[in-house]
Amino acid sequence: MSRDVVVIGVGLSQWGELWDLSLRDIFVDAALAAIQDAGVDRIDAMYVGNMTAGIFTGQEHLASLLADYLGVTPIPAARVESACASGGLAVKMGFMDVALGLSEIVLVGGVEKMTDVGTEEATYALSTAADQDYEVYHGITFPGLYAMMARVHMEKFGTTRKQIAEVAVKNHYHGSMNPAAQYPQQVTAEQVMKSVMIADPLRILDCSPITDGAAAIILCSLDVAKKISKKPLIKIKGFGHATDSIALHSRTDLTLLPATVKAAQNAYKMAGISPAQIDVAEVHDCFTIAEIFIIEDLGFVPKGQGGKASEAGITRLGGKHPVNVSGGLKSKGHPVGATGVAQVVEIVTQLRGDAGPRQVKKARIGLTQNMGGSGGSSLVHILEVI
Amino acid sequence: MSRDVVVIGVGLSQWGELWDLSLRDIFVDAALAAIQDAGVDRIDAMYVGNMTAGIFTGQEHLASLLADYLGVTPIPAARVESACASGGLAVKMGFMDVALGLSEIVLVGGVEKMTDVGTEEATYALSTAADQDYEVYHGITFPGLYAMMARVHMEKFGTTRKQIAEVAVKNHYHGSMNPAAQYPQQVTAEQVMKSVMIADPLRILDCSPITDGAAAIILCSLDVAKKISKKPLIKIKGFGHATDSIALHSRTDLTLLPATVKAAQNAYKMAGISPAQIDVAEVHDCFTIAEIFIIEDLGFVPKGQGGKASEAGITRLGGKHPVNVSGGLKSKGHPVGATGVAQVVEIVTQLRGDAGPRQVKKARIGLTQNMGGSGGSSLVHILEVI
Repeated sequence: MSRDVVVIGVGLSQWGELWDLSLRDIFVDAALAAIQDAGVDRIDAMYVGNMTAGIFTGQEHLASLLADYLGVTPIPAARVESACASGGLAVKMGFMDVALGLSEIVLVGGVEKMTDVGTEEATYALSTAADQDYEVYHGITFPGLYAMMARVHMEKFGTTRKQIAEVAVKNHYHGSMNPAAQYPQQVTAEQVMKSVMIADPLRILDCSPITDGAAAIILCSLDVAKKISKKPLIKIKGFGHATDSIALHSRTDLTLLPATVKAAQNAYKMAGISPAQIDVAEVHDCFTIAEIFIIEDLGFVPKGQGGKASEAGITRLGGKHPVNVSGGLKSKGHPVGATGVAQVVEIVTQLRGDAGPRQVKKARIGLTQNMGGSGGSSLVHILEVI
Repeated sequence: MSRDVVVIGVGLSQWGELWDLSLRDIFVDAALAAIQDAGVDRIDAMYVGNMTAGIFTGQEHLASLLADYLGVTPIPAARVESACASGGLAVKMGFMDVALGLSEIVLVGGVEKMTDVGTEEATYALSTAADQDYEVYHGITFPGLYAMMARVHMEKFGTTRKQIAEVAVKNHYHGSMNPAAQYPQQVTAEQVMKSVMIADPLRILDCSPITDGAAAIILCSLDVAKKISKKPLIKIKGFGHATDSIALHSRTDLTLLPATVKAAQNAYKMAGISPAQIDVAEVHDCFTIAEIFIIEDLGFVPKGQGGKASEAGITRLGGKHPVNVSGGLKSKGHPVGATGVAQVVEIVTQLRGDAGPRQVKKARIGLTQNMGGSGGSSLVHILEVI
């Protein structure tokens, strides 16, 4: 690996149901915020994470379109896709570009415009992350797939309905301290457990929302960053990227996410650290149950203990392993292609000490975990303030 | 740039209207052909170029799905998209991965399954490479966009209808010698000029077809390739990647393709060669007129002389600058996400001396040029047998 890569700028667009803004508007908002935060006057290359603007908005060829609207053509610009892990994938690609020495200053963005279509079409668009020929054809969509995983986890490990609800309680509590959160309202476990049933045992308050939003970061080589950056430098210390069958029926064990296990192992190895050294983590809580799987698969708690740990407050701000202090996908929102980049935005904010009331004290090492579909792809990044 | 990268294996699936095969089938066919050609027993990472399987087949999250069907999970697998330049973009990403030392053996594939939908839906799917809000909204699709570019070229440089037709004549002649070509039939200039009108002045025989197909190559570091490969090693000597506005109305000059000019300049510079040293080239003749623009913008002939040069046989097999000896997109077919990878397959075949009746004699240096939309993105690769 040739050069060290650091994050020198971060930015978010407004997140929510943005009916007056188009995909290109929100991307440019996030990109300009990151450029301003970094204090740079040029971009050498650009990577865009987006899941399915083709279906949501009829627009492919997104990287060139967005480079044009940002005013940075003719620089190389690439769109990458790995379903809801598209943002994390873009971060990896930007890392590779800078590490190799192709570019000095790279913009990595993620964007999704999800509310220009109705709920039914949005559900269809998201279902394209599952196996269209063998899963979706039979009528299942993501709440159903995660509900099956939840059932197996409950059956095998005794995870309770209330433990699962506690993930939503915690993340909405965290989100209540994040001005960027789409749903900053706090909820109780009882409210979660009595909310509208979606796919038994998962209810509406177990599900992340439909969100319009974009996120962007500026990557730079460490040497150049030392000269131009006025903020604490946040190094990408390690990453892992792994795949698994996207169809649940091809997995041998439904109680873990093998791609996340593998990606985490590779990231820890590259960073030379253990899970215990992670001070703050943003993980892919597309459904409450997903966070329980993930904190186990990242090695924060033993397999099967994710439910108990969530109930005990281990992943709460102030706990041993603060997870999703931004509010997570659940409260902050989940513009699918933007999420993986937004996770890095939060970790950088935390490691800079700029997170205000939701600041994790003395956070020096952070982790992001971004996942596609029901776990068919997973990207883990480890960042450290230097 | 850390390590030299070589191509050690190439493969194609069947190309055509493959109603009995699915997207995953044809991808795996091409991938296995490339793996067998390379003689490798493992893959460390995978990049997949695909334009819009989401619209064509309802399937995103493609890289994980295809890694699963190829039996190579949990390796990192990424799908990249830049409209019809998605394949070329995948080649660049594979190059970066190996050059950086992340992986030793990387599979780069491209795939598009276009015939599972009707013609109208296919036209819509392809139109997502143009600006949806400002171009497609007004009813224009790609034949119309290229027809406008043709008109300007004819007006400014005196390019004739017959000169444009000669591109089709040549590429179908070349395709007649390629067993993989979807439309190997030869055509005359008169047949082209009398074929069904699509968008004046472009007629049906000026247009590349709708194709199902996949292509794959195996990339490897030079050091490892020397130990494991039994075939001539083909080095990726240089590449260029550039963007432009995807909407024609934002361009200041419609007689050239700025992204292609820029990508070519960067590729020549990295390779340390001039256009005159290119022995064989595969370029993006999605429409006949596109090839005329491109041979000018690559520097094979002066600006404005592309029509005359095509008529004079300069780009014909045996001419000074043989272009699209595979038959090009026009005759070989154009499964959009696969095309950029298939261009590399042809150049490797030529540089190995394995192209049979369409072999360019003593070919040592080859070039590929792969383009998105009406030129909003362009990727150029230069390869050399070592």
